[in-house]
Amino acid sequence: MERKNFMSSLRYGIGVDLGGTTVKSGLVNSGGKIETQCALPSLGDEGPKAVVGQIKQAIQEIVKRANGKSLDGIGIGAPGVVVKEGGVVKNPPNLSGWNEIPLGDEIQKTFQMKVEVENDANAAAIAEAKFGAGKKYPNFLFVIWGTGVGGGIISDGKIYRGPFGGAGEIGHISINYNGPKCKCGAKGCVEAYIGQKHLSRRAAKILKHHPRSKILNFAGELSKIEPLHISQAAEAGDKIARRILVEAGSFLGVAIAAVMNTLDFRVSIIGGGISAAGNYVFDAITESAKAHVLTPLKNDIIVIPAVLGNSAGILGAAGLVL
Amino acid sequence: MERKNFMSSLRYGIGVDLGGTTVKSGLVNSGGKIETQCALPSLGDEGPKAVVGQIKQAIQEIVKRANGKSLDGIGIGAPGVVVKEGGVVKNPPNLSGWNEIPLGDEIQKTFQMKVEVENDANAAAIAEAKFGAGKKYPNFLFVIWGTGVGGGIISDGKIYRGPFGGAGEIGHISINYNGPKCKCGAKGCVEAYIGQKHLSRRAAKILKHHPRSKILNFAGELSKIEPLHISQAAEAGDKIARRILVEAGSFLGVAIAAVMNTLDFRVSIIGGGISAAGNYVFDAITESAKAHVLTPLKNDIIVIPAVLGNSAGILGAAGLVL
Repeated sequence: MERKNFMSSLRYGIGVDLGGTTVKSGLVNSGGKIETQCALPSLGDEGPKAVVGQIKQAIQEIVKRANGKSLDGIGIGAPGVVVKEGGVVKNPPNLSGWNEIPLGDEIQKTFQMKVEVENDANAAAIAEAKFGAGKKYPNFLFVIWGTGVGGGIISDGKIYRGPFGGAGEIGHISINYNGPKCKCGAKGCVEAYIGQKHLSRRAAKILKHHPRSKILNFAGELSKIEPLHISQAAEAGDKIARRILVEAGSFLGVAIAAVMNTLDFRVSIIGGGISAAGNYVFDAITESAKAHVLTPLKNDIIVIPAVLGNSAGILGAAGLVL
Repeated sequence: MERKNFMSSLRYGIGVDLGGTTVKSGLVNSGGKIETQCALPSLGDEGPKAVVGQIKQAIQEIVKRANGKSLDGIGIGAPGVVVKEGGVVKNPPNLSGWNEIPLGDEIQKTFQMKVEVENDANAAAIAEAKFGAGKKYPNFLFVIWGTGVGGGIISDGKIYRGPFGGAGEIGHISINYNGPKCKCGAKGCVEAYIGQKHLSRRAAKILKHHPRSKILNFAGELSKIEPLHISQAAEAGDKIARRILVEAGSFLGVAIAAVMNTLDFRVSIIGGGISAAGNYVFDAITESAKAHVLTPLKNDIIVIPAVLGNSAGILGAAGLVL
């Protein structure tokens, strides 16, 4: 009986996770559970009209499956810079032909309910704050460490977007003013040390001297090394792979420390592929961050993995309206 | 007549600037003018009781001079970490024997009006936001570049204190993970490149090869070089002095860029001794910050000098209650 009462007090929202290749949508309840979801190709190459059509179809499917449940609204996580007013999505990477699309207004017109659009990294940060590893931390830095390095800032339980909506881009904090050139044009960005491309290149270089490392078992050949392969080899006990990830973690720790010092934060939550890695990576990040923050912060620095994985996109998007 | 009406609509507050050697107080009007001020030795060596006594005396003097004008309250800028609740000042550098003193409550008890206490760098940031170089910028990073490098964050017109009140400590952002050791224990903090001690040491080193630089005219001897002397020589056209300051500015730009990327800010305001330096310093900071921020930020990066100088402390403190 109690359980039934609890169930009936749940609210519902639709979360949409727009990616370069897939648009995912889900029916999310206020307890943080995705009750049903669907995925469509996002048609990123066919221009914004096709993509918006896919988004609408993905939402329509969930509205249908919601089966009359009252919905609080629709949240959308999109790549690129998002202007809250009108839910305008600007120049999303991997979606061709976009300049500025008022996605929120467009979806609102069709579905006649509250619509919120947010940058995808921010949406994932919101997901971890509401439903994941950040539930007990009102202030934390969320980092996505994957192809690149992105992030979001949760301040006082809410996303901090900054004056232009792009806050949290920690991948381009320079950890060495005279370091390697990043694709953004600057020198020494942390992404230029630990982004997918750079990590793979670093692995290939080290493997020339350590041909027996297990990384090659997972990657097949030097030119095909992905961070996932390094991670898999590390999990299988490969010392070289561990060393590469520990080194990368210590680079990330320097950038994290810059944010901790700036905002007087203590907690970082790391998402993306690496969140599945072992403690040694998180220990390395933590140690490096501690070494680079001011004394009063040192003892309280916490670096933990995100827990929502691929669901973070849908959950965080729905979290915008729940 | 109109002027009289304007004058009579002014509100008043008392601002107190607590330093290691002096406690300054002033009567500040809501137009940002210090109408009268006084200064007493802060008695920092005699322990908190003596210091608090001096603060009360400095306030009493201004209350007297206010001559019956209605006062909005008392604001105090203090070194160290400040906990807003109770106006607790924790371990202020240069004030011996303090641990945690509930300064705000103490002053409130005596004067029976609203009292706000804030970290001194934050108070200076507030001063520039309300009355100075930041009036037209709702979001900016304030940097104090003097003996050390400190700062404050103005977000949406208000000071951003962070969850523990210590936000804005940009002096200890590492601009080189493998750089020189800072007194805080970390490597490559921007303060370890451009703080007073390091700047002087750098100048002394360069002067060994350039004995005809005018820096020595101002400093007298190698061991006595202060950033002020370098700045004075630079103003007098000395190329070596300029080169040192331009180099320092470009280091500062890297740390500023980290904050701009993190918060999606565009504007930095530089206070402390260097704010009186020539354009070449600000140009160097700007250029370096531009080189280290993400593309969408590059064209909008603004770095300007603070304009309130030594008055910022009193003005910002009063700004807490005005």
